[in-house]
Amino acid sequence: MKDLQQQKQDYLKQFQSKTYGRNLLKSDDPFDAPSEECGIFGLYSENELDTFSLSQFGLFALQHRGQEACGISVMNKGRIFNLKDEGLVLDFYKDIREPETFMGNSAIGHTRYTTAGDKKKYNFQPFFAKNEYDQIILSIAHNGNLTNAKSLKAELEAEGVVFKATSDSEVILRLIQKNLDLGLRGAIKATMEKIEGAYSVVGMTRNKFFAFRDFHGIRPLVLGAIDEKTFVAASESVALDAVGAQYVRDILPGEIVYTNENEPGLQSFLVRENCQRNICAFEYIYFARPDSTLEGINVHEVREKSGMKIWEQAPVEADIVIGVPDSGVPAAIGFSIASGISFRPVLIKNRYVGRSFIVPTQDMRERIVNLKLNPIISEIKGKRVVIIDDSIVRGTTSKRLVKILKKAGVKEIHFRSVSPPIIAPCYLGIDTPSKEDLISANMNVEELRAYLGVDSLEFLSMENLIKILGSTDHCFGCFTEKYPVPKGDDEELIK
Amino acid sequence: MKDLQQQKQDYLKQFQSKTYGRNLLKSDDPFDAPSEECGIFGLYSENELDTFSLSQFGLFALQHRGQEACGISVMNKGRIFNLKDEGLVLDFYKDIREPETFMGNSAIGHTRYTTAGDKKKYNFQPFFAKNEYDQIILSIAHNGNLTNAKSLKAELEAEGVVFKATSDSEVILRLIQKNLDLGLRGAIKATMEKIEGAYSVVGMTRNKFFAFRDFHGIRPLVLGAIDEKTFVAASESVALDAVGAQYVRDILPGEIVYTNENEPGLQSFLVRENCQRNICAFEYIYFARPDSTLEGINVHEVREKSGMKIWEQAPVEADIVIGVPDSGVPAAIGFSIASGISFRPVLIKNRYVGRSFIVPTQDMRERIVNLKLNPIISEIKGKRVVIIDDSIVRGTTSKRLVKILKKAGVKEIHFRSVSPPIIAPCYLGIDTPSKEDLISANMNVEELRAYLGVDSLEFLSMENLIKILGSTDHCFGCFTEKYPVPKGDDEELIK
Amino acid sequence: MKDLQQQKQDYLKQFQSKTYGRNLLKSDDPFDAPSEECGIFGLYSENELDTFSLSQFGLFALQHRGQEACGISVMNKGRIFNLKDEGLVLDFYKDIREPETFMGNSAIGHTRYTTAGDKKKYNFQPFFAKNEYDQIILSIAHNGNLTNAKSLKAELEAEGVVFKATSDSEVILRLIQKNLDLGLRGAIKATMEKIEGAYSVVGMTRNKFFAFRDFHGIRPLVLGAIDEKTFVAASESVALDAVGAQYVRDILPGEIVYTNENEPGLQSFLVRENCQRNICAFEYIYFARPDSTLEGINVHEVREKSGMKIWEQAPVEADIVIGVPDSGVPAAIGFSIASGISFRPVLIKNRYVGRSFIVPTQDMRERIVNLKLNPIISEIKGKRVVIIDDSIVRGTTSKRLVKILKKAGVKEIHFRSVSPPIIAPCYLGIDTPSKEDLISANMNVEELRAYLGVDSLEFLSMENLIKILGSTDHCFGCFTEKYPVPKGDDEELIK
Amino acid sequence: MKDLQQQKQDYLKQFQSKTYGRNLLKSDDPFDAPSEECGIFGLYSENELDTFSLSQFGLFALQHRGQEACGISVMNKGRIFNLKDEGLVLDFYKDIREPETFMGNSAIGHTRYTTAGDKKKYNFQPFFAKNEYDQIILSIAHNGNLTNAKSLKAELEAEGVVFKATSDSEVILRLIQKNLDLGLRGAIKATMEKIEGAYSVVGMTRNKFFAFRDFHGIRPLVLGAIDEKTFVAASESVALDAVGAQYVRDILPGEIVYTNENEPGLQSFLVRENCQRNICAFEYIYFARPDSTLEGINVHEVREKSGMKIWEQAPVEADIVIGVPDSGVPAAIGFSIASGISFRPVLIKNRYVGRSFIVPTQDMRERIVNLKLNPIISEIKGKRVVIIDDSIVRGTTSKRLVKILKKAGVKEIHFRSVSPPIIAPCYLGIDTPSKEDLISANMNVEELRAYLGVDSLEFLSMENLIKILGSTDHCFGCFTEKYPVPKGDDEELIK
Repeated sequence: MKDLQQQKQDYLKQFQSKTYGRNLLKSDDPFDAPSEECGIFGLYSENELDTFSLSQFGLFALQHRGQEACGISVMNKGRIFNLKDEGLVLDFYKDIREPETFMGNSAIGHTRYTTAGDKKKYNFQPFFAKNEYDQIILSIAHNGNLTNAKSLKAELEAEGVVFKATSDSEVILRLIQKNLDLGLRGAIKATMEKIEGAYSVVGMTRNKFFAFRDFHGIRPLVLGAIDEKTFVAASESVALDAVGAQYVRDILPGEIVYTNENEPGLQSFLVRENCQRNICAFEYIYFARPDSTLEGINVHEVREKSGMKIWEQAPVEADIVIGVPDSGVPAAIGFSIASGISFRPVLIKNRYVGRSFIVPTQDMRERIVNLKLNPIISEIKGKRVVIIDDSIVRGTTSKRLVKILKKAGVKEIHFRSVSPPIIAPCYLGIDTPSKEDLISANMNVEELRAYLGVDSLEFLSMENLIKILGSTDHCFGCFTEKYPVPKGDDEELIK
Repeated sequence: MKDLQQQKQDYLKQFQSKTYGRNLLKSDDPFDAPSEECGIFGLYSENELDTFSLSQFGLFALQHRGQEACGISVMNKGRIFNLKDEGLVLDFYKDIREPETFMGNSAIGHTRYTTAGDKKKYNFQPFFAKNEYDQIILSIAHNGNLTNAKSLKAELEAEGVVFKATSDSEVILRLIQKNLDLGLRGAIKATMEKIEGAYSVVGMTRNKFFAFRDFHGIRPLVLGAIDEKTFVAASESVALDAVGAQYVRDILPGEIVYTNENEPGLQSFLVRENCQRNICAFEYIYFARPDSTLEGINVHEVREKSGMKIWEQAPVEADIVIGVPDSGVPAAIGFSIASGISFRPVLIKNRYVGRSFIVPTQDMRERIVNLKLNPIISEIKGKRVVIIDDSIVRGTTSKRLVKILKKAGVKEIHFRSVSPPIIAPCYLGIDTPSKEDLISANMNVEELRAYLGVDSLEFLSMENLIKILGSTDHCFGCFTEKYPVPKGDDEELIK
Repeated sequence: MKDLQQQKQDYLKQFQSKTYGRNLLKSDDPFDAPSEECGIFGLYSENELDTFSLSQFGLFALQHRGQEACGISVMNKGRIFNLKDEGLVLDFYKDIREPETFMGNSAIGHTRYTTAGDKKKYNFQPFFAKNEYDQIILSIAHNGNLTNAKSLKAELEAEGVVFKATSDSEVILRLIQKNLDLGLRGAIKATMEKIEGAYSVVGMTRNKFFAFRDFHGIRPLVLGAIDEKTFVAASESVALDAVGAQYVRDILPGEIVYTNENEPGLQSFLVRENCQRNICAFEYIYFARPDSTLEGINVHEVREKSGMKIWEQAPVEADIVIGVPDSGVPAAIGFSIASGISFRPVLIKNRYVGRSFIVPTQDMRERIVNLKLNPIISEIKGKRVVIIDDSIVRGTTSKRLVKILKKAGVKEIHFRSVSPPIIAPCYLGIDTPSKEDLISANMNVEELRAYLGVDSLEFLSMENLIKILGSTDHCFGCFTEKYPVPKGDDEELIK
Repeated sequence: MKDLQQQKQDYLKQFQSKTYGRNLLKSDDPFDAPSEECGIFGLYSENELDTFSLSQFGLFALQHRGQEACGISVMNKGRIFNLKDEGLVLDFYKDIREPETFMGNSAIGHTRYTTAGDKKKYNFQPFFAKNEYDQIILSIAHNGNLTNAKSLKAELEAEGVVFKATSDSEVILRLIQKNLDLGLRGAIKATMEKIEGAYSVVGMTRNKFFAFRDFHGIRPLVLGAIDEKTFVAASESVALDAVGAQYVRDILPGEIVYTNENEPGLQSFLVRENCQRNICAFEYIYFARPDSTLEGINVHEVREKSGMKIWEQAPVEADIVIGVPDSGVPAAIGFSIASGISFRPVLIKNRYVGRSFIVPTQDMRERIVNLKLNPIISEIKGKRVVIIDDSIVRGTTSKRLVKILKKAGVKEIHFRSVSPPIIAPCYLGIDTPSKEDLISANMNVEELRAYLGVDSLEFLSMENLIKILGSTDHCFGCFTEKYPVPKGDDEELIK
């Protein structure tokens, strides 16, 4: 094993001499924010309703969880209709010619995050299974990541099951399909007893709706109601707001919520009692929208408090405090409130980011510094600046930001991350780089401060994060390398 | 003529009983923000350079000025190559197969704003003129609006000139083309002496570059330099930042900047001496990016000051101040600084807006309330709220916002517009509704307060606006109905 | 019931006053030749071979049996791959990107005839059935027409079978699919015991090949061998020539030819013994290629003999004899040999026919007379001409041809049809018009002669046709209205 | 220089060991028939008429002269509209959405032959020139080949003329365009005085129509009239038949036919008096349709006589005579009439040829023998056969045909070419292979007989060809290597 010093050298070197390989013409550094796969949305009503509009609104509200692709399945008069395509929600719906065909009793939808490698359409969701007459009999949308998908897939293939995609979500689909003769609830139960990892799922058969969540509740899934016959399940509460639904509660770890023929409304079944709650802490720090409330905790509030706490933890004399847009801003305001240092929104984010720049030469690549974030120089020149970001992953964005600020003539830079150092990758639904690329896994705080070239650097402590969240009922795996479920065999499975 | 009372009734009625006509399936109210057509960008170098990358960066920085379409013309070895298409800048560049063909001495580019009616490709810019061998000999990109385009077009057509588009910009192109035997400078001069209205233009012939601005400097146009042989002209200074250019100065009202064979660098020629400066005040209030500096005045600073001034002008007791994102936010911070009332970013904007919702029924249309702006209820419930917006145009967005806030349970709403009442349409490049649809042209402040249902309503006074901007050297036409140039004959010309 | 005289009047009137309805812009008269649906081709080998090339050659040789669409299924390593599209065989194969993927043990193919109404892709063949994992497990190509498809379809739908196309061929597919648990041979046998009408079928499962023919052998199906491990079945013997196969024999009425795991080569099974042979007489008269040999009888020879026989039956004094290209030419040569009257190929057919003319007005439609057939005037002017056509269906083409000849200045026209009068439609795989549109069902020979305006008109007698074919072992339904199988319920089923 | 014997060896070797290079997947031998570029059609009327339908009919009749692409220009109310695309005439017209826009005073059209290398759309015809406002002011369609295009192009480019295509036809267009200030007739005259080679041209300005032909009349061009105000010019008389026009006369060598404002009808102007007529002999032998009459001579008659003459020239004892379809058939009938040997149409041509086979391996390529031509074996087995073809170019088709016949078991083969040996390439509009690939330039008759492996081989003698055509007023360059115009500099110009 290489000694630590060597490791650091290697780490640094890759950013100096790096040849960007197949990404030569893309401007982006290895992406420098953790990324999650997918928002999910489902609704069910005893009456036929305009699932076209409602799913559009719900998915639009979850767009921040995935911009690569979009899809829905609609249940109507015993048939399931599926549609999915690349692109944003409003683009997707714009291209639908006949909204009237989307009337139905139920709809599930999915917004998909852009993963690097496998943008193939067969991995878009919702997934579906057909019968021998080419009719869809089952459809699901999944957010999360299984840790034993690889072995389960091998097992199922040995039994003759045929897979059409490379996503772990299909393992869930095929397991339910295979077990459908146990009844819907039985099939889901049998599936949950096989799969491991993080999963929040919504789905439908030709006449039933269901939603379920893994035994730790790692990825969020909230339940709401539009009226007493119309129910909604979604990744975040903003999707309830978007369709005019009242929040009911979060779906429980290990719970199946479902409809059946004989009883009205939604039924609940706990596959396992007394599961521990371990919702991902990063949802609050970065992913979820600030106006979402998950497990009773408002996201904006967490962020504002994290700014306050880091001031307490590491006070500093400065002239202004700036938040890196968008998720750093509430923390910067919290910091300002706690410290009295003036908050200024003087780092301007270009809102039309989304696609990479195409640049033919390394020379031009190096010019891409302040295209996405541009400072108002007159506001920061000669000032002592506190800059607050939600986290530091690879360090490349932070490094670039420091370069921008210095070029703008700031006097001092005090960098604050309102999350603890990220020292381990996530195997439970977030697309983080591997350990070699996580800068805090390779440098201590002082080394990193020197590398970034800032006057001070501070990370929110684990203790403070726990205080802000109010409990340890979360997954903190990326900060602690301790995960609620074992790593499993599938880290290389295309997520 | 209808009496004022009746006029108000009619105005209000249209929002109650309105049938939305051809927009039935679009979710949007008649758009409720003024909109400008276009950002322009041009660069010229004595050396051949990577105009592909530089124009990409420059246009990307101007994307906020137009998202409908994008185009560039590149001059290379005596040939002009033109490319334009629908969509955003990064989409446009992504679809370019061979960046190497974009090496050249000069490039001009254009980002086009979505107008309602005439999205035809023939109106995309840059425009170009060809010779008898189908070669482009002249290309221009224009931001602004001519007021005598209609009569000039008729005059030119009578002389045998053939028009291919419906845009007033083509009048500029054809006039220059027609006068090219006067030399390039002469042709531009002859053109400027004919056309009236607002225009900032960049352009090229097969071996020369030029930029010029109308006699009042209504639309912005700044000049920068990358090195001593490479010059940039653009709508806003952010485009200079984006390509690594230093700001040199704003192009003067009535000035032509151009290259010629015999002299190095850029030449300047004043078609008319001592023109008055009348840059559009709305650029500072709404259009321009906060990190832009126009005519020496930073946009962010204007906005922050406007918040401070409106506090002075109309102080109020309140618990929090909220800015309507994005342009209301700096004003809200200014207001907070001046008043000591806590600023909170608790009105969350969905960043994926851009395209309209498609909704099949009126019932569903009415549900679209907080899809684009969603409040964090816990932060505002029971509170006295100051809400700051950049302006009030039709009043529909404000009305909807008040509805959202009330539903969220705020105790008091104090609405502040950090621009004076808009009482007249713009004929000089901004796409405002006609007078019947401008709510401040139809109601006084108290009537509007009652209509919105807020506890207090205040507009920034003209006096304060002038103080903030530092002079009366601006166009304030939409606030005063007094324009630097007469209205002309072309208000119905498709812009 | 209308009396016969009225019926004739009505018949004639439709060609005078006709408004062409939806075909307004098409030049064609109601099509005036009988048309058959489809050529089929199948091959099987114990070795893997280049099914790409062989099926291309085989289908190309059957192109005359259908030009609308083309498709193949290939069996390779236990998987079935299907591809079908509009267009001609060589266009279809040209668009195939990766010929190497077409290596396999078996291929079946289909060329589809253009029917008026239902060109939907779902009706293109080969048809296939999938299992629950979306894998093709069965594929067939069918030539013929079932007479009880309608009732069988209703029966199957009642049992829960789901149909995806509107073709009767899918009934065959779904019946085999449904009965697969009887083993392949059993499933085909069960299917044949249910379906009625005309059918020649080739097909495959994931590891077996089969071909079968109805109990009367109405549509042709020949068997050949490339080597002792490689077998071919096809609609006509020309497809055997095209792949270098030797003719073995015609598949028998009521026979299933198939492969199984345990025995080498092809197996044969007679579902019903001692079936009568009733191959369609029109195959010899019009459809089949002259170089094909069906049931031991060469097609060219039949045609040449028919010309000889009609001379015997109705001799005439004339200067030259002309055959209407292409199928009338061998008969004209036979007529010339028998009569000594000089044969001249002076009616020139434009070889690029295939698609209709688009004409905007009736005036222009009437000009379309000699675009498809143009005479060499110098060769026929002032001459007594015998014109020989294979058949007369609606009479419109014959009428038009007479007009052309008269305009060219011929002195006498002696029209000969080398088939008997067509008095009844076909329900067994040929696309003929209904009785009201069959001119010989509405006029006797003398009436028709007068209508056409020719000097003499003669049809080959049934007696002579039987003599030429050597037996009554044929279907003569269109001449006699006596069919080997009852009409059934499905005449309106889209074929 | 290699001696003749070596040359022959080399020639033969290429067909034994040949690797087909980039054509590996195409089935065709180096194409083995001479090929001409283009049919042209033009019409003009003083009245507005349905040029859509008429040009469709006219071009359809000329489809045999080119199947690659199709185009028309229409003159309507002072504007010229141009449309061209790949594909057959009826496909082209089918895709035209609005026939009503094709009403006009004049139309010119072109059918383009498939050349190997340069299928680019910019080479499709009609060509057109535009003015500075992007309006078409001149359009032409050309059949033929210039011999000094290369030097003229260089000359024009030096003067600043810009070329957009690689076709010699554009040289004609640009020369007329450049000289338009001489008036239309003057511009054409000036053009004809510059260009050398073979050219038949139809064209239009925005209000005038014209047609002209080179000083030797090498390519055909006939003139007809629909009524006294409506005139037609076309490559062959069949196009007159197709639009209901009466043949008037052939346009003379060196003649311009044109309209002008002041005089009604068509005007004629001879640029040069007393030109010699040298129409291409191969038009009669192979290209033109049999129902065409060119310069007063009917094509079918020439072919029938050639069969009679070759019997006189080289009688033989045989059982049957077969013509290679299509152009060999009339000669075979002539041979039969003269000899009394029975004519039999027993070599069946697949009518769906047009596109090459795609074959992945050499093995499969070798199987492509009788796909395009298939014999009726029963009719020829054991017989002594005379086989008549229009010509022998490379010899590959003949060789293959002999192989087919031998495999079918014929007893003797007597091969007759009803044209003289082709010993030289054509530089005047026909796409022949170069000398190395012309088999008769490399072998004498006896050598070729042995190479083909036939019992006798005979070519029509030059004397007999002249007798049949009635004079020496033709171009016989490919038989004699003596051309009416010098070779020039442009043999490598992409035609």
